[in-house]
Amino acid sequence: MSILAVGTVAFDSIETPFESAERVLGGSASYLTLAARYFCDDVRLVGVVGGDFPEEYLRVLRDGGIDLQGLEIDADGETFAWSGRYHYDMNERDTLDTQLNVLQSFEPTIPAAYHDSRIVCLGNLDPKIQRDVLAQIDNPAYVICDTMNFWIENTYDSLCETLPLVDCLVVNDAEARELADEPNLVKAADRIRGMGPETLIIKKGEHGALLFSGDTIFSAPAYPLEDIQDPTGAGDTFAGGLAGHLVRANRFDDATLRRAIIYGSTMASFVVERFGPERLLNLTPARIAERAHAFRDLAAIPELSAFQPA
Amino acid sequence: MSILAVGTVAFDSIETPFESAERVLGGSASYLTLAARYFCDDVRLVGVVGGDFPEEYLRVLRDGGIDLQGLEIDADGETFAWSGRYHYDMNERDTLDTQLNVLQSFEPTIPAAYHDSRIVCLGNLDPKIQRDVLAQIDNPAYVICDTMNFWIENTYDSLCETLPLVDCLVVNDAEARELADEPNLVKAADRIRGMGPETLIIKKGEHGALLFSGDTIFSAPAYPLEDIQDPTGAGDTFAGGLAGHLVRANRFDDATLRRAIIYGSTMASFVVERFGPERLLNLTPARIAERAHAFRDLAAIPELSAFQPA
Repeated sequence: MSILAVGTVAFDSIETPFESAERVLGGSASYLTLAARYFCDDVRLVGVVGGDFPEEYLRVLRDGGIDLQGLEIDADGETFAWSGRYHYDMNERDTLDTQLNVLQSFEPTIPAAYHDSRIVCLGNLDPKIQRDVLAQIDNPAYVICDTMNFWIENTYDSLCETLPLVDCLVVNDAEARELADEPNLVKAADRIRGMGPETLIIKKGEHGALLFSGDTIFSAPAYPLEDIQDPTGAGDTFAGGLAGHLVRANRFDDATLRRAIIYGSTMASFVVERFGPERLLNLTPARIAERAHAFRDLAAIPELSAFQPA
Repeated sequence: MSILAVGTVAFDSIETPFESAERVLGGSASYLTLAARYFCDDVRLVGVVGGDFPEEYLRVLRDGGIDLQGLEIDADGETFAWSGRYHYDMNERDTLDTQLNVLQSFEPTIPAAYHDSRIVCLGNLDPKIQRDVLAQIDNPAYVICDTMNFWIENTYDSLCETLPLVDCLVVNDAEARELADEPNLVKAADRIRGMGPETLIIKKGEHGALLFSGDTIFSAPAYPLEDIQDPTGAGDTFAGGLAGHLVRANRFDDATLRRAIIYGSTMASFVVERFGPERLLNLTPARIAERAHAFRDLAAIPELSAFQPA
């Protein structure tokens, strides 16, 4: 069973009120695969970096067990670079700079060995590129897709062509509202699912996540953390845990999706505890299991007796 | 078993994107008691209105079974009046005007028949008045308290004298952060509980609520509604369902508090479906039970198997 992640591998320059660092290993595909590999031993990465990408970062990914056959190295180009600054309460950030560099001309070619990928995670890329990727995969069991305001605003029609090819769209609440042009999340979810994806997951950061699947809604809490060092990559790490559990379970029913969201939330709760992807480098199955179980206590509503009116 | 609610009874003038109305029955004690009376047949109200308060509104409360012996009518004064406007997404509002009127000189006298009240709900009033109220109650089993930014900013020391007398403080997330002077809610909760209240409930509006009691945290979801007509009174209605379940259960342990939050959330989810307190006037035990049970489905995390590492 395999996961294919297509997305960015980047240099992140991050400022938080507590720490700052330049050119940290980042990008959606890095976080996603570093989380997913705890669940699945066949995690494949498709992306591009420049000649400036250090061997040390390649080693981090490779030592994590990630298959880098699909990582193109454009020796003449420079790696995609993002920089951002978090506010004091960590729930908001300003993007200071984005240098697309090698990403500007990225047209992913999927290695033949990846054509049989079971779960495909389409990172936040041009919807046209997302379709081109899917056209190269034989018969994926499940397609998970991310997008963002830039694509909603600038490539709406193209995004509408991609959505019918997607099983599960994962966006944040602002993106869901913008995509549906509707402030109410329940109505927005209806509208978005009408555009193609059978399942919709809305991430709400420190407020958890909502799952719309079949005719039910699941509200997952966020893990209450005392110490958030750096929220960078939390959304992609969430997607990694999500895809990881799904490929391991090899089922996509409501109960499995609920568990997958808990594992996604678990992985996200770990990654924000340290700067950059550091926390993803030294987790253990026991720690992951322990925190996932803590979510059940956190959300547990005791049995309600029959209602006795006054 | 009895609930005593001390708070405002008001005229609310409300503008939403869909509807507006002037001088609707409002105030924290109105919403709280109209919710609590579904759980308890001895709900007592202490507050003040002016000579302009219509008999019709008194009848609404009285027909709801609420004991109005403690509602002072200041024939020469005018009723407290609030007006506000909701934004399109209903999560934000602007207060347009506040006329304290009779509230300005309000010094609640608790009728002798109320001295044995079991649960006391201290509405969002001057902390000094909150203490004066408690001094008049013989031996309450449980004290629930609300406050707001105005009292935190202007009467901080007085609030610090009230908090040790409180069993359960119920505030929203912005108030919790301001009271603790700490953006992280877990740390803020620790600090606030150090100021007195054994239990803290943080309301997060459309994102649910957090309960900090004993050494556990409970994250309750909000009920996902397609149609929110008017959020006015949701927080006080929440407190009414909360107090209602607690007095009915006559226990204050973690499991009971969790259930109480679900009943509070249930009542709040109803009240926002109609303008003003209208929805609270015609509920049935069956409808309340049905929605409370729906919360369990909404939040249910299926059993997690032992973690199988990759």
